[in-house]
Amino acid sequence: MNILLVGATGGMGKTVTEISNNAEDFEIVAGVGISTGEKLSYPLYQEFDDIKEKIDVILDFSNHNLITSILDYAKQENKPLVIATTGYTEEQVQEIHDASKIIPIFFTGNMSIGVNILLSVVENLSRGLSDFDIEIIEKHHNLKKDAPSGTAKMLFDAANRGRDNTLAEQDGREGANLSREKNEVGVHAVRGGTIVGEHTVIFAGVDETIEITHKAQSKKVFAMGAVKACKFIEGKESGIYNMKDIFNF
Amino acid sequence: MNILLVGATGGMGKTVTEISNNAEDFEIVAGVGISTGEKLSYPLYQEFDDIKEKIDVILDFSNHNLITSILDYAKQENKPLVIATTGYTEEQVQEIHDASKIIPIFFTGNMSIGVNILLSVVENLSRGLSDFDIEIIEKHHNLKKDAPSGTAKMLFDAANRGRDNTLAEQDGREGANLSREKNEVGVHAVRGGTIVGEHTVIFAGVDETIEITHKAQSKKVFAMGAVKACKFIEGKESGIYNMKDIFNF
Amino acid sequence: MNILLVGATGGMGKTVTEISNNAEDFEIVAGVGISTGEKLSYPLYQEFDDIKEKIDVILDFSNHNLITSILDYAKQENKPLVIATTGYTEEQVQEIHDASKIIPIFFTGNMSIGVNILLSVVENLSRGLSDFDIEIIEKHHNLKKDAPSGTAKMLFDAANRGRDNTLAEQDGREGANLSREKNEVGVHAVRGGTIVGEHTVIFAGVDETIEITHKAQSKKVFAMGAVKACKFIEGKESGIYNMKDIFNF
Amino acid sequence: MNILLVGATGGMGKTVTEISNNAEDFEIVAGVGISTGEKLSYPLYQEFDDIKEKIDVILDFSNHNLITSILDYAKQENKPLVIATTGYTEEQVQEIHDASKIIPIFFTGNMSIGVNILLSVVENLSRGLSDFDIEIIEKHHNLKKDAPSGTAKMLFDAANRGRDNTLAEQDGREGANLSREKNEVGVHAVRGGTIVGEHTVIFAGVDETIEITHKAQSKKVFAMGAVKACKFIEGKESGIYNMKDIFNF
Repeated sequence: MNILLVGATGGMGKTVTEISNNAEDFEIVAGVGISTGEKLSYPLYQEFDDIKEKIDVILDFSNHNLITSILDYAKQENKPLVIATTGYTEEQVQEIHDASKIIPIFFTGNMSIGVNILLSVVENLSRGLSDFDIEIIEKHHNLKKDAPSGTAKMLFDAANRGRDNTLAEQDGREGANLSREKNEVGVHAVRGGTIVGEHTVIFAGVDETIEITHKAQSKKVFAMGAVKACKFIEGKESGIYNMKDIFNF
Repeated sequence: MNILLVGATGGMGKTVTEISNNAEDFEIVAGVGISTGEKLSYPLYQEFDDIKEKIDVILDFSNHNLITSILDYAKQENKPLVIATTGYTEEQVQEIHDASKIIPIFFTGNMSIGVNILLSVVENLSRGLSDFDIEIIEKHHNLKKDAPSGTAKMLFDAANRGRDNTLAEQDGREGANLSREKNEVGVHAVRGGTIVGEHTVIFAGVDETIEITHKAQSKKVFAMGAVKACKFIEGKESGIYNMKDIFNF
Repeated sequence: MNILLVGATGGMGKTVTEISNNAEDFEIVAGVGISTGEKLSYPLYQEFDDIKEKIDVILDFSNHNLITSILDYAKQENKPLVIATTGYTEEQVQEIHDASKIIPIFFTGNMSIGVNILLSVVENLSRGLSDFDIEIIEKHHNLKKDAPSGTAKMLFDAANRGRDNTLAEQDGREGANLSREKNEVGVHAVRGGTIVGEHTVIFAGVDETIEITHKAQSKKVFAMGAVKACKFIEGKESGIYNMKDIFNF
Repeated sequence: MNILLVGATGGMGKTVTEISNNAEDFEIVAGVGISTGEKLSYPLYQEFDDIKEKIDVILDFSNHNLITSILDYAKQENKPLVIATTGYTEEQVQEIHDASKIIPIFFTGNMSIGVNILLSVVENLSRGLSDFDIEIIEKHHNLKKDAPSGTAKMLFDAANRGRDNTLAEQDGREGANLSREKNEVGVHAVRGGTIVGEHTVIFAGVDETIEITHKAQSKKVFAMGAVKACKFIEGKESGIYNMKDIFNF
């Protein structure tokens, strides 16, 4: 499979390139991105129109502000697109959905297969264990700026869907005379060292608890998910796809 | 709801009795069992035919060898039956299924709601994370005689169903030149102190893992599940029911 | 060993009584407390002066407001005293220290052997892993009013001693542009179900973490610690003793 | 500080080189090893006698069979040596100890600071919690050949020292009528995915447990420990040193 990698020289671009170098059926044949001087195993372009290679799927790990030109190129060439970038405005999300009427687009907020499966499981557990209290703990490295993490918020939303949107997020607790509301979900942001990312959802009932934890060891997880998405979307009809379509959970 | 409790004076019988004393809509009105001299809040019978109280549901926490007489009584009185005992022979299981053509019977290997939900989740994760390695750790008190635990075996079976019965159980590992087979599931039995029961299933992939853990704090968990089962089965048609029918997972 | 149990009919008093009934070398021969009508295996007194039994050690699980009369009785009878009650005012703590010049007194904020050992270990780890970030997670049942728990604060203090009191407690985190200070210790209070008490201290460094967790399964833990303290203090000279003196860590 | 890196082109050699490239006070000025064609930031030698650079400390991440020539060179140049290789025969260990009468040598079975501190803590906990049951769980990737891991064995030895060498290792459990001996330590080897290395020691008592876990995220941990060792040993007198001398635990 021939891949055009947009954002080829960024952190995630490098990780995908490494995987490609060791894969048999996944080859990056062209990249788009700002040259960093490093030698690449494929030609690097600044303009989409200069690309000459035969491409099967476009994989985007660049920046949300490039989405218009990426969509234009994908529609013009009639190629499937995998979007692994986040941070889109509502207008940009609309652009993506409009383009999906013409080409197949894979679009997700988190490329990790594990995290996506976790979201499904948490929604189901939240519904099934309807009288259990829910709490969320996330752990990240000491340089992370935002708390709670985006994934922790996605987990809260998943739990909330399982309870018909009756839950309320509670970030941290401190005081001498607190009372935990039944619909309260404590979300706790641990920061320390170089932890890549750990998310735990706790379901606590009478004399029993269920805890489910996802741990990411490295950014490779997200690159691997993107590779899966590229393989999945080749040959699909136009439309929007996400991780749920892959693992058929 | 009026309950006849069979096995009223055993360990689990006592725990159910305690719950009944504090519940509004769940009352034990009669018991069957061997008197231990302790004072009970309800009459204790040795023979089913002596029972005079009006009963809604029969709850069995006694011994698998009593099943024939319990089924006879339940059929004769046309009352729903909740079976919370384990260790049945194949013939006894057949007896139970035969009786379920006449009366509704709730029948499960583990009364904990959490464990039953865990079984469903593990089967789904095993199917969804099809290239992840699976390992199981269970922890129990230092007096437990069997290893791995019955619940660990149920978890292995659930994982195995998710992989079309291609997995193989591996109890422990020791050696200098081992090679883990892809379909191998290590099952590890930790024993120590007074741990009531912890079960963890690990799904380990490339640079990410998902772990799901169930912890039981006390035997009350199993009694609580039985109470739920009694409330569920009242008014149902004849047939076999289990935890999956309750939580609609 | 003959024990006088003050606070015999309270929750902890009952738990100690249960242990005593099953122990060979630890017998409660008299109790002080308000009668609840329940039958006890020993006489229950309202006044210390009425006690006729021969006593080796006095064990207090009552209320901090009784301390003056307990100390008076212990000094008068020249008996060692184990104080398992908390919540003392500064004046009362002074009273206890004054009395310890005459009789041996065991005095601690937490009777669990495990928690006390944890405090020592955390102080040492904090000193030894001087460039690791520290975070604390505690988990308790959904009815607990205060957060973080008293034990979590003791753990923070222990970590702080290991860093020459340069650390700062941070209860929870929320925001889009946070920056974790090096001396910051996040303390996270999870609340849910019937969790008796779990405390975890995380030491997170570059590409490695150490986590240490204490879990209490029931209140029996605190009663067991008190029994150890009684056995320890018999025959000791006057003075103040605590858990560190027992386990010689 | 100027470092001679022996084993410069192996896996650990590369990791140390990366750290050196980003460090201010730690520079590899020469390497010994088999050329892999990759460009290095320092000259690579095949023979010790060809080295011309001024060296402060020799760091060995090569192979245990090179120890004689490394020791000869270190003694001849009178330079401190840090040995980060394992697998030595008894004779080789003797050689190392003999050489330490002339030069300072840092010698340890595990370069991770965290693991070394864990060993100390486990010995202390084993002694302090003398009536708690001990179990060990280790987790590694699915390609690891030996079980239990070398570090798990070091942890068992540490626990055993805390109990005056009365403990017995038990690798895994399976059966219907087992009885856990008091001095038995279950050691459980979990294998799956790409887990770098996790070690947990469980101390399980009556109604309470303490668990301590070390997690390594990458091999960088071991390289970082070696850097610390180099900085520590510069200027020391002749003798054998290990991690305990660094962190003063």
